[in-house]
Amino acid sequence: MGGNGPDDRGGRSRRRYAYLGPAGTFTEAALRQIASPQDADFLPQVDVVSAIEAVRTGAADHAVVAIESSVEGSVTAVLDTLATGDPLMLQGEMIVPVSFALATRPGTGLSAVRRVAAHPHAWAQCRRWLQQHLPDAVHVPATSNTAPAAAMASGERELGFDAALVPPPAVDVYGLVPLADDVADNHHAVTRFVLVGRPGPVPPRTGSDKTTLVVHLPSNQAGALLEMLEQFAARGVNLSRIESRPIGDSLGRYSFSIDAEGHVDDERVAEALMGLHRVCPHVRYLGSYPRVDAPHGDVRPGTFDADFVAARSWVRALREGRAH
Amino acid sequence: MGGNGPDDRGGRSRRRYAYLGPAGTFTEAALRQIASPQDADFLPQVDVVSAIEAVRTGAADHAVVAIESSVEGSVTAVLDTLATGDPLMLQGEMIVPVSFALATRPGTGLSAVRRVAAHPHAWAQCRRWLQQHLPDAVHVPATSNTAPAAAMASGERELGFDAALVPPPAVDVYGLVPLADDVADNHHAVTRFVLVGRPGPVPPRTGSDKTTLVVHLPSNQAGALLEMLEQFAARGVNLSRIESRPIGDSLGRYSFSIDAEGHVDDERVAEALMGLHRVCPHVRYLGSYPRVDAPHGDVRPGTFDADFVAARSWVRALREGRAH
Amino acid sequence: MGGNGPDDRGGRSRRRYAYLGPAGTFTEAALRQIASPQDADFLPQVDVVSAIEAVRTGAADHAVVAIESSVEGSVTAVLDTLATGDPLMLQGEMIVPVSFALATRPGTGLSAVRRVAAHPHAWAQCRRWLQQHLPDAVHVPATSNTAPAAAMASGERELGFDAALVPPPAVDVYGLVPLADDVADNHHAVTRFVLVGRPGPVPPRTGSDKTTLVVHLPSNQAGALLEMLEQFAARGVNLSRIESRPIGDSLGRYSFSIDAEGHVDDERVAEALMGLHRVCPHVRYLGSYPRVDAPHGDVRPGTFDADFVAARSWVRALREGRAH
Amino acid sequence: MGGNGPDDRGGRSRRRYAYLGPAGTFTEAALRQIASPQDADFLPQVDVVSAIEAVRTGAADHAVVAIESSVEGSVTAVLDTLATGDPLMLQGEMIVPVSFALATRPGTGLSAVRRVAAHPHAWAQCRRWLQQHLPDAVHVPATSNTAPAAAMASGERELGFDAALVPPPAVDVYGLVPLADDVADNHHAVTRFVLVGRPGPVPPRTGSDKTTLVVHLPSNQAGALLEMLEQFAARGVNLSRIESRPIGDSLGRYSFSIDAEGHVDDERVAEALMGLHRVCPHVRYLGSYPRVDAPHGDVRPGTFDADFVAARSWVRALREGRAH
Repeated sequence: MGGNGPDDRGGRSRRRYAYLGPAGTFTEAALRQIASPQDADFLPQVDVVSAIEAVRTGAADHAVVAIESSVEGSVTAVLDTLATGDPLMLQGEMIVPVSFALATRPGTGLSAVRRVAAHPHAWAQCRRWLQQHLPDAVHVPATSNTAPAAAMASGERELGFDAALVPPPAVDVYGLVPLADDVADNHHAVTRFVLVGRPGPVPPRTGSDKTTLVVHLPSNQAGALLEMLEQFAARGVNLSRIESRPIGDSLGRYSFSIDAEGHVDDERVAEALMGLHRVCPHVRYLGSYPRVDAPHGDVRPGTFDADFVAARSWVRALREGRAH
Repeated sequence: MGGNGPDDRGGRSRRRYAYLGPAGTFTEAALRQIASPQDADFLPQVDVVSAIEAVRTGAADHAVVAIESSVEGSVTAVLDTLATGDPLMLQGEMIVPVSFALATRPGTGLSAVRRVAAHPHAWAQCRRWLQQHLPDAVHVPATSNTAPAAAMASGERELGFDAALVPPPAVDVYGLVPLADDVADNHHAVTRFVLVGRPGPVPPRTGSDKTTLVVHLPSNQAGALLEMLEQFAARGVNLSRIESRPIGDSLGRYSFSIDAEGHVDDERVAEALMGLHRVCPHVRYLGSYPRVDAPHGDVRPGTFDADFVAARSWVRALREGRAH
Repeated sequence: MGGNGPDDRGGRSRRRYAYLGPAGTFTEAALRQIASPQDADFLPQVDVVSAIEAVRTGAADHAVVAIESSVEGSVTAVLDTLATGDPLMLQGEMIVPVSFALATRPGTGLSAVRRVAAHPHAWAQCRRWLQQHLPDAVHVPATSNTAPAAAMASGERELGFDAALVPPPAVDVYGLVPLADDVADNHHAVTRFVLVGRPGPVPPRTGSDKTTLVVHLPSNQAGALLEMLEQFAARGVNLSRIESRPIGDSLGRYSFSIDAEGHVDDERVAEALMGLHRVCPHVRYLGSYPRVDAPHGDVRPGTFDADFVAARSWVRALREGRAH
Repeated sequence: MGGNGPDDRGGRSRRRYAYLGPAGTFTEAALRQIASPQDADFLPQVDVVSAIEAVRTGAADHAVVAIESSVEGSVTAVLDTLATGDPLMLQGEMIVPVSFALATRPGTGLSAVRRVAAHPHAWAQCRRWLQQHLPDAVHVPATSNTAPAAAMASGERELGFDAALVPPPAVDVYGLVPLADDVADNHHAVTRFVLVGRPGPVPPRTGSDKTTLVVHLPSNQAGALLEMLEQFAARGVNLSRIESRPIGDSLGRYSFSIDAEGHVDDERVAEALMGLHRVCPHVRYLGSYPRVDAPHGDVRPGTFDADFVAARSWVRALREGRAH
């Protein structure tokens, strides 16, 4: 996984991965699915934008960032940072189940908890549990899911909160006491992460791949969106994600962040990309990579590579007067 | 015009054209637009199917046949004969204005006319005039527009009719007397003819071309027709003619005879053909040739050849990791 | 069947049916499926246009005319006569299997047959048989399938032909001798006929109905045809027939003759008609009537009457502030 | 504006508005566009979800909440809170220009600023300015744009930050010192707010209205999204906003939050709603209200109310046998 060879790393023997740290975050759990701290440098960052920018500046070879939560939806800062600026490429994806523990320092009981530190996404995902068990709790926002755990472990006296919602591994990592396990409202919640790198060779096609794009529409008319979608439909390409984002200069102008089923080396995807390139004012290709989040939909009859190859041969023969 | 070189004619110096004869027909007028009896052999045939079959058997190099009347619509026998059987290719088209004279032998006055010989299409195109001027006239069907003229010229006594609807040139050719000129109900009526040849090199692209196809649908659902048409729409290809024809084995199954604007060497047409080849159970290509019947519609932005070439280069660069 | 009550017939006790005669035609066979000469007046006409016009003038209460052959396609003269002029309404349809006998007068053998009288459609449907068994036969066109039979029966000496292709019942009706039975190339050929009447109450919905329309497009662009078809697709209405016809004033402008599955009393058909009325420059409704030519396609989920009624109630409640 | 009559307020003479407080927020600026503290009760809330829930519980008559930023996109917590739970209705919208001041307590200079308190959205919108002018600044997240201002005004010693990004009005309200004005990266940034109430009468149509919906798709196939959009396109209804949201139980299932141009009392909108109700498993209507964010797109020919009324009359006449 990952398209950068040793030369890309200037002779360094270890790849460097920027991610939303510190230790114990869900992002670290995602990173550990593809790399080990024995063999690679783990470079914690304060936010997802910094993690991505570290790849652009060359401070890291890769970034691992959350792109979509099954509960919260897309991580818009990630989508927007990938959509503009120097080009980057997605090289893989990882899924991490999301649950939370309510943890504190030794000596604090549940009844004493008034102020709860939590990343806003964590707070949102545990809202119902909190309303039931700590209806008077006040939200103290945190910049990451583990920042409050690190603060509690630091021995600092004035924390400004009594307990925190943290990823389960952080309880042990930071020597905390769990007041309650698995407090997320949705027990099937997952977050999808992507591996980001600099442009380079596309990971080889596996037969179950995903291609990520950013597409601007020529106008905000319903017809413009239909015309864009027909470029996929005419080649039988399914979409597993479509997300509108404001273009940023005014309300009412949108770009679309899209995950299409298939690989740029699949004929149907390549031809759909060509169609988008022709009819949309801007298309950014963010890579093709093996998908792990769901099985592929079926490939429709007439849209296998062999169908495209046969069709192209037929038209070539027509042009040369050899067929009809 | 025409793709058959001298070798195709076995060393013969003169091309042979089969057409719906005899002399004086509209078809002959169409043929004279592209060939002269001084330089080519004119081979009159009894019907359009015979003209087309003469090309298949090798008895002729080309056929000239009516394919569409602005009044009567498609000549279905021509569409159906081209759609099945040994492959043929359209190599050009010609437009002939259609008008009729009511003609007879010297000595017959309009008031004496009771039985009027006419090809059924001619009868249909003069119906209103006949109802006004000869309300009691009986239709005596003829196999061509000039067969009654030839019969009158032959001196035969028992014609079975008193006058005939004939193409204006036939009045002189056959030494007849016109009882009324320009009796067609629609004074702008035209018929479109096509030049048919055996498969071979496609006439070069002129920038104002037409491509003729026969396409079978996978089913008779509205969705199947929409899906077929979207293969054109997704590439911005306009249709100048679309005609449904029964497939012949039962009611409710159709093939479509289609004229698309553009040439197989136009990228947008080529890609639409590829799409049809993938999604339709049967596609027959009947050729690309210069159009004469109407100006081209505008080419839509994003569907010029340069747009396709740029899109293809972009996708190729994506696949090679050189673009994004 | 038929919407005209006794008053429409001015007190006459017998309905009058115009049809393509004389006795023994396929059209008469269609007419006999719905009426008997004991109870109704059979009014033979010389052609289909005359049959239809007899309804317009009031000379007949109904007409029975062929509208579509499984081999030859639509009967364009019928489509065009229904599409313009005083409004008429289709009130039913009938299917008749089509086969032909080669028949002659007593005393003529097959080897003596040179000139074969046949309606052009009959000739087309028996072409392959004729090429095999009578390769030198010349076509003598006839105005109907039974006109040559009647001529042979009349005892006339100078027929101008030796044998005729006739409907099987005509052999006995006219006292002829069959030289060969069942000579049609396609043994499953059928012709569909329609019952035409003056505008009036629509036959009640049966659950397996068909609605016939004539629709003009705003332009000849591919998009215009797509937009028209989407009016059907958005309501899940399937088409069992779609036929383009020239509008008649120039090449390249078309109207479409359409059979849609369903009845004007079906909600999905009614709403599709409303959509056509809004987006097309001209729509002519030619009636809804029980279909006999094929089973209905399935009704798509969400397009049953109950779905439309529920949707309308919901929107009404929204407007009144009673729902959300 | 607003559908709740005096009875809804239990005889109270003052309406109660829940909003994201405290004083000085952008939300308060939006609220002041439609109400004054002289005439209404302003009920500040700690977050947008609480503001919306206050309407559901009856603690407030209305809520004013941000729904979309021209820079950050949709406020997903608002979309999701409106999409499920007890029904609510949008009754109006307001636009507020968004800019920020960097403010602090008297006595602090720019060079001393290390830790900057900011709501995450404010931080995101000033990121470039901060990188240029305070490249080493650390983000201290705040729960609202004014919470840090209130903290500085309170005289608290241990703030945990040196300065804050605050709305310009908050500088005066809280007696702060501006270190820099107008520090947002995008000088045309605006935020759109909506007025939320309990279900009731729909605000009257003005001719420039917007209708907000939540729609679930039957599947995640490209075809399902196309089919949904065609329900709008077939009636000529444009969309001014379309946003996908995860349904929450797994990745890959989406609902769409949609703003359509027009009012439920517009025929084209009503019929599109009916179509959605038929083909989508779930549709929630969130109201029709005057739009202020942009001019309407043009109404397409054939989609004015008069066109729908004429079409409906025509079909009714067809059903009654009075038209054709």
